[in-house]
Amino acid sequence: MLDVVAKLEGVPINKLRKSVKAGRTVLLRNEGRDIIPCAVGEHVSTKVNANIGFSPIESSYNEEMRKAHAAVSAKADTLMDLSVGGETSKTRKTIMEKFPIPLGTVPIYQVFSEKHLDFTLENYLAEIERQAREGVDYMTIHAGITNQCLKYAKSRIIKVTSRGGAFLASWMTKNKSENPLYTGFDDILEVLKPYGVTISLGDGMRPACIADASDKAQFHELKVLGELTKRCQKAGVKVIVEGPGHIPLDQIEKNMKLQKKLCNRAPFYVLGPLVTDLGAGYDHITAAIGGAVAGLYGADFLCYVTPSEHLGLPSVEDVYEGVMATRVAAHAVDIVKLGRRDRDDMMSRARKKLDWDAMYGLALDPNLGRKHKKPAKGKECSMCGKYCALKIY
Amino acid sequence: MLDVVAKLEGVPINKLRKSVKAGRTVLLRNEGRDIIPCAVGEHVSTKVNANIGFSPIESSYNEEMRKAHAAVSAKADTLMDLSVGGETSKTRKTIMEKFPIPLGTVPIYQVFSEKHLDFTLENYLAEIERQAREGVDYMTIHAGITNQCLKYAKSRIIKVTSRGGAFLASWMTKNKSENPLYTGFDDILEVLKPYGVTISLGDGMRPACIADASDKAQFHELKVLGELTKRCQKAGVKVIVEGPGHIPLDQIEKNMKLQKKLCNRAPFYVLGPLVTDLGAGYDHITAAIGGAVAGLYGADFLCYVTPSEHLGLPSVEDVYEGVMATRVAAHAVDIVKLGRRDRDDMMSRARKKLDWDAMYGLALDPNLGRKHKKPAKGKECSMCGKYCALKIY
Repeated sequence: MLDVVAKLEGVPINKLRKSVKAGRTVLLRNEGRDIIPCAVGEHVSTKVNANIGFSPIESSYNEEMRKAHAAVSAKADTLMDLSVGGETSKTRKTIMEKFPIPLGTVPIYQVFSEKHLDFTLENYLAEIERQAREGVDYMTIHAGITNQCLKYAKSRIIKVTSRGGAFLASWMTKNKSENPLYTGFDDILEVLKPYGVTISLGDGMRPACIADASDKAQFHELKVLGELTKRCQKAGVKVIVEGPGHIPLDQIEKNMKLQKKLCNRAPFYVLGPLVTDLGAGYDHITAAIGGAVAGLYGADFLCYVTPSEHLGLPSVEDVYEGVMATRVAAHAVDIVKLGRRDRDDMMSRARKKLDWDAMYGLALDPNLGRKHKKPAKGKECSMCGKYCALKIY
Repeated sequence: MLDVVAKLEGVPINKLRKSVKAGRTVLLRNEGRDIIPCAVGEHVSTKVNANIGFSPIESSYNEEMRKAHAAVSAKADTLMDLSVGGETSKTRKTIMEKFPIPLGTVPIYQVFSEKHLDFTLENYLAEIERQAREGVDYMTIHAGITNQCLKYAKSRIIKVTSRGGAFLASWMTKNKSENPLYTGFDDILEVLKPYGVTISLGDGMRPACIADASDKAQFHELKVLGELTKRCQKAGVKVIVEGPGHIPLDQIEKNMKLQKKLCNRAPFYVLGPLVTDLGAGYDHITAAIGGAVAGLYGADFLCYVTPSEHLGLPSVEDVYEGVMATRVAAHAVDIVKLGRRDRDDMMSRARKKLDWDAMYGLALDPNLGRKHKKPAKGKECSMCGKYCALKIY
């Protein structure tokens, strides 16, 4: 499979092999699935994930299938199914049958929605094994949120915004115990290794607002994630690391460099970061700004944010917008990261000739041509008409 | 007026006065207009401009008035009317009557649409005097595009994308003469000074694509703009400098710092920059990414880009989206530039309490509440329902 990936990514196979071996690039794919792996990490293009999934109070299996379709038609590289309650197993199975791209999940959701605070490590191991058997390619595992993190979080405006993190924090507090995913991490590794499932180390302490960014709680968890990363790599389990969250523009570089340093240069998977707390309704844009800057400084994998972030579950249209916004950020990064400017230059030559069919074909949005009234080839658009700069000079 | 501006901007009046005197902050306002000036530059918030204006083949006075209204309702700080042909004078006058914010224009459009290549410096001076008398607050003047720039532009994919730049370049080529706005710059200063009109030095050589970014043509013009900036400042004429364009992410810092250095730290007014050429349909996002990074490194004033950039004249909805995307970028900058995080922190506290009315009131989008179904105070949204992290822990 490595040769196929190397060809698709335009990277020499030996260079890719070395990077995969060192854990700096990870191939997302469950051994049981018949798909081309998605490469995340150095030397390969910046990837985009779209979250779908019904919530306990909105949407349905059918609606989420439409969202998965929208995400894939906007060219998301991976999907995560965050469904809680209801037909989660059916949802996962159908997505994997229909869409030949990696699927990620957060198994703690399922365990908590069934067992609530009575959950045990055994329940959790059974669930991840079930999902691994189903074919899930990567799983968010919040093993880094320790009691020390929760102590540090006390001074925050919003202590925990991660859903999985909040589940575990409430269990840890009630039971006055350490995080069972942390203490039982070796068991988790043992279960997942045979399936080739990638662990995506969740950041239960990701800041929920600019005020809480880059604080002790966040960085202490990151240090723990760094240790867990090395344990995964030593055990031969594929691992990527999840990151913030809400971070002001000038702290993104520091955050990315710290993750790379603490986590043995494992791939970094970021949610945003959102560069202001005030963007509701436009948080796909807030996140695209943060994602582009994060990518410039080392983030490898961008989780989309939709226009309905902080407002509610996204609609089908929101999902499409979210993927496109994130793909703009990812490609802006790849122009720098990989010097991948060929298609941009083709676009510029098409623009010069006012060749609209070519322009619509080259645009990142594969459905652009359906949405806009295209002028005829060689004809100027409605912006300037006969005063088109490209025709005047 | 300086005291009002100082209070609005939350900056000590002496600090602002010093900055205005040095030309590092500029107050956009024609002496003849009864509006609060818009401050652009150091120590003050990052400003957002929205372009409106009909083209020779689309839209109308009425339609553009609706766009101006949309831009102002989305809280644009300034408007530029780029109308060509038709009722341009009526459009300008109505905008200035209706909206108490600075209005900018590009007078060369009017002169060329009337005189074509027979235009003279005298025609141009008459037009800027007419518009200055009408009350226009700032004018884009493409005085920096010299024959040397055009020579350097020969190796570009797209030589000139600026409409005003293309008008002048075609005149210069046809007449084998230097740019009359460059050779007649002292006359321009003399005409505009009594009105307190701010000169916005246009970048006729702004790159139209990533491939042409940071090239000799662009930087040679910037050097000329630097000289012209100093001539404005010496003559007591307010001046800001326009910038790119299309620039890859990793070249933005260099571009901003070079402008500040060459132009005596005059305010920088950027269009984007767009960080990929492939974003058509989403170029408000491409520009928000570039604008945020530009602001981080010194840009003071962001011209919006709408989702219809590279496709056609924007709709009313596009105008609103464009302003909002740019305001997200501008505020992300101000969190860093001015440490202006108070409203973000209020938002985070409202979020913690699930106080939706407060959240909708604090969001950058003043019309958010009208667009979304708001949950009741203290009730979780449809994203997580009863599994809301803020309620669980």
